[in-house]
Amino acid sequence: MAMPTDLEIARAAHLDPIGEVAARAGIDDEFLELYGRDVAKVSLDAIAANRDRPRAKYIVVTAITPTPLGEGKTTTAVGIAQGLAAIGKRSMLALRQPSMGPTFGIKGGAAGAGYSQVLPMEKLNLHLTGDFHAITAAHNLLAAMIDNHLHHGNALDIEPHSISWRRVVDINDRALRNVIVGLGSRIDGVPRQSGFDITAASEVGVILSLATSLHDLRERLGRIVIGYNRDKEPVTAENLHAAGSMAVILKDALKPNLLQTTENTPVLVHTGPFGNIATGNSSVVADMVGIGCADYLLTEAGFGSDMGAERFFNIKCRVSGLHPDAAVMVATVRALKVHSGRYTVKPGRPLPSGMLLDNPDDVWAGAPNLRRHIEIVRSFGVTPVVALNVFPTDHADEIDAVRQIAEECGAHFAASTHVVDGGAGAADLARAVVAACEEPARFRYTYRLEAPLADKIEAIATRVYGADGIDLSPAAARELAHFEDLGYGHFPVVMAKTHLSLSHDPALKGAPTGWRLPVREVRAAAGAGYVYTICGDMRTMPGLASHPAAERIDIDADGNTVGLF
Amino acid sequence: MAMPTDLEIARAAHLDPIGEVAARAGIDDEFLELYGRDVAKVSLDAIAANRDRPRAKYIVVTAITPTPLGEGKTTTAVGIAQGLAAIGKRSMLALRQPSMGPTFGIKGGAAGAGYSQVLPMEKLNLHLTGDFHAITAAHNLLAAMIDNHLHHGNALDIEPHSISWRRVVDINDRALRNVIVGLGSRIDGVPRQSGFDITAASEVGVILSLATSLHDLRERLGRIVIGYNRDKEPVTAENLHAAGSMAVILKDALKPNLLQTTENTPVLVHTGPFGNIATGNSSVVADMVGIGCADYLLTEAGFGSDMGAERFFNIKCRVSGLHPDAAVMVATVRALKVHSGRYTVKPGRPLPSGMLLDNPDDVWAGAPNLRRHIEIVRSFGVTPVVALNVFPTDHADEIDAVRQIAEECGAHFAASTHVVDGGAGAADLARAVVAACEEPARFRYTYRLEAPLADKIEAIATRVYGADGIDLSPAAARELAHFEDLGYGHFPVVMAKTHLSLSHDPALKGAPTGWRLPVREVRAAAGAGYVYTICGDMRTMPGLASHPAAERIDIDADGNTVGLF
Repeated sequence: MAMPTDLEIARAAHLDPIGEVAARAGIDDEFLELYGRDVAKVSLDAIAANRDRPRAKYIVVTAITPTPLGEGKTTTAVGIAQGLAAIGKRSMLALRQPSMGPTFGIKGGAAGAGYSQVLPMEKLNLHLTGDFHAITAAHNLLAAMIDNHLHHGNALDIEPHSISWRRVVDINDRALRNVIVGLGSRIDGVPRQSGFDITAASEVGVILSLATSLHDLRERLGRIVIGYNRDKEPVTAENLHAAGSMAVILKDALKPNLLQTTENTPVLVHTGPFGNIATGNSSVVADMVGIGCADYLLTEAGFGSDMGAERFFNIKCRVSGLHPDAAVMVATVRALKVHSGRYTVKPGRPLPSGMLLDNPDDVWAGAPNLRRHIEIVRSFGVTPVVALNVFPTDHADEIDAVRQIAEECGAHFAASTHVVDGGAGAADLARAVVAACEEPARFRYTYRLEAPLADKIEAIATRVYGADGIDLSPAAARELAHFEDLGYGHFPVVMAKTHLSLSHDPALKGAPTGWRLPVREVRAAAGAGYVYTICGDMRTMPGLASHPAAERIDIDADGNTVGLF
Repeated sequence: MAMPTDLEIARAAHLDPIGEVAARAGIDDEFLELYGRDVAKVSLDAIAANRDRPRAKYIVVTAITPTPLGEGKTTTAVGIAQGLAAIGKRSMLALRQPSMGPTFGIKGGAAGAGYSQVLPMEKLNLHLTGDFHAITAAHNLLAAMIDNHLHHGNALDIEPHSISWRRVVDINDRALRNVIVGLGSRIDGVPRQSGFDITAASEVGVILSLATSLHDLRERLGRIVIGYNRDKEPVTAENLHAAGSMAVILKDALKPNLLQTTENTPVLVHTGPFGNIATGNSSVVADMVGIGCADYLLTEAGFGSDMGAERFFNIKCRVSGLHPDAAVMVATVRALKVHSGRYTVKPGRPLPSGMLLDNPDDVWAGAPNLRRHIEIVRSFGVTPVVALNVFPTDHADEIDAVRQIAEECGAHFAASTHVVDGGAGAADLARAVVAACEEPARFRYTYRLEAPLADKIEAIATRVYGADGIDLSPAAARELAHFEDLGYGHFPVVMAKTHLSLSHDPALKGAPTGWRLPVREVRAAAGAGYVYTICGDMRTMPGLASHPAAERIDIDADGNTVGLF
């Protein structure tokens, strides 16, 4: 009998009233704001209320270097949360909120898969409780106030060409990447070139993900730098008197959203900053809520351990003050075979036929990538667990090869069949996570905040990515000096690079050695509180395909949504 | 003792759990989706469930020609709903949702005033349940799919210069009125000029307000015309395969939102299409829900009876099949004095000093405006009630003058002090409404749909506005012929003109006579299902002032929002 589709499984699942899910999770009813029967926002007052409870074991879910197809990290994180519940542990999962725009682009929905999904999937993939819309509105209000300031005489003496604050929409809209605004007559503003990014790339979204309280949010918004005046001094959202309104727009968006898995395990879904130029992690406040509720709090970080997890350790944990106990690295036979360098996979195309043959040698050839990711996690003093997300096409001796590679590195290992079996299929993995959390963790950062910015960049490049060193362009070096003059020297660093390689070159699979990281350009996100390097072409506004998913999504005769999966 | 501010009254008000408000209103719990404690969406299944209940008396709340300051129509509508409850009647009120953008512009919040407010005011003025955000997203997805279609080869052969579908944001952003999109390199789309309107001007919002069901919504979205192909045939959202996704984005937004007044009277808040180029009324489905619940359903129409109410009668009632029993015309001493032609008032400026003197002669001099609005309501076969919204600065003989004018016309009349006294202050007005509803109504439209478009325009101009006739520009005449060729001949007509005069000239106060209405341009909203005439400059994207309200809105030390009022 064929396995039911994700949509069929989602529709057949029994959802508990979200208040019951919250109660089991240790979140008191008084902290819930219902959004329909199946979703609730959690007040940040829950953090203080649970302060005296024992803190949950804290596990970040990361991955080896993924293929462009993705390796099922979200569904594995869901599976572990279900698996922990299946072995009698109180688990909670914190996930990023998917961006709505790409849902109508190439990917369809993003809510896990099979019997390890987050529900209701339709809400998760569309508006949820409107947090992304609030980010869009706050971001664009600031943009309108900038152009309005220019229009009404430019009292702050803003240099128009220095304005780096663009607008955002949560839609894949390539035609908005580069626009000229302010055309028309004298009452229609001041003409200048600008553009739109997708909402997930907004600094406002990063700020929302890093804020520890409403007041912290308000202060960070005020520190956003939108450009410079003619004396080359930064002009902030505070200077424009925009930050108060932005905070008001974001008040509700600061509260994490509670949903549940197909097995009714609690899931906090909150914020979704881009994994390339931004932090790629869900919110600090969601983890602060979860750490006081569950016995095991899982939190997912975007892409591989060199990407989202590195920022999770060096940035998010620094802001939250929380220290992780273990890191789960999701691996697939498929990805390890690609890391052999013998295959190329592309989204929307069938796999190369040879990849589906039983060939553990391919897996061994890709092993350096997994080993490197285990080392990365170890470099933070955190216990690694390798989670093999098993596909029906995997062969037993291939699975065994992954086990051997992991165990040779001294990592915990389990294969997991949560997609077809739900939490029962992840019970071994859950037990491996519990065992890993029993080991003492000696969490440490890659760099001290007091180090010079260039040293922090170099530390990440060499100690995390395995580069021999960094090559700063003259422009990047100048910018770093400028940022240190402006007082940003103590900021942590986000490295904007491809997620498809440990290096900056997506074609370099496995664990590249003998290379240096070129840093072309450096920018600051002063409100969010980090400096970011541009190491490659970073797209901040996706486009739509010639026949995007939007063409297939519709309502059926019964009013049900079709085509979202 | 000074009266408390609106904000103090709102904060001190006791809100009932919204489920209790719904239960009292006759809306069963199973039809509610809670959005926090104080707001709920109402499923459209409530319409069928209440089909066998006696239908409520149906009262539209309109106004005389307002001044730019507004005459308190929303607060009077709230007052009547409270007043009906105070005299023991089950009332319900349907209001438009305020647009968020202008909240940060000049006006501050819009939720009634004093002891006749809709609560929670912060939600009402900001995101509420995200319906406007959904309109923005659906509208802009279609825009992205248009530009994407051009980018990927333009298989539909769309003539780029014919594209009339712009983008929308719910922000006053003058710099977006006229933009060039698609700049950059070949992968960044096709350059062309376009622009942004405010979300309240979106045809998607009008469609949401007129749809009678999810399927009707889906069909109307498909009929949206975005431009023409090179054979001059209309290109629709259906042709672009966008309408299904748009309907999915709007699924929840189609459900009306339930809130309450300061006295816990139920209020349905739903959709807010512009009062100038669009219909300016709340949704058909909100009224369909309310008509089956309450004994008295009040529904507010934008601006004066020549504007929102004319469209309520000729368009909204035609779509819903509901027939009104009475029309309340909100008048103020202030507005009647302005209609004397002796005073000019401007927002943000003090009133001319002479206006506050006791001078009933000024009121009599402005009487023709009120008389004309009474005649307009009568022309629809609906019983008029003049509601004087009393200001503390009004004098007794001025109030009496308004009473005499109304009663000489045979209209019901009551003065109402709801702003300072709440429902108790509107009890007389509520009794006048009850009395009006006892009179037999012989509802009729201004025109038959089968009449030629030009005849419909002329019927509104002469029989509603009091013009001697219309002057169609050659371009307008050509467009009308074109629309009849395209099969739009049976559409009703929206007249886009100033709301500050019964004529097209905002300077003409009172009841202008001896004038003809110039029709410069005619456009079609084929999805919403009407043709609209442009009779004057219609702004579809407001700007921000040099010091907009956004600069004053903030959170205080306790996290409360300040500056929204």
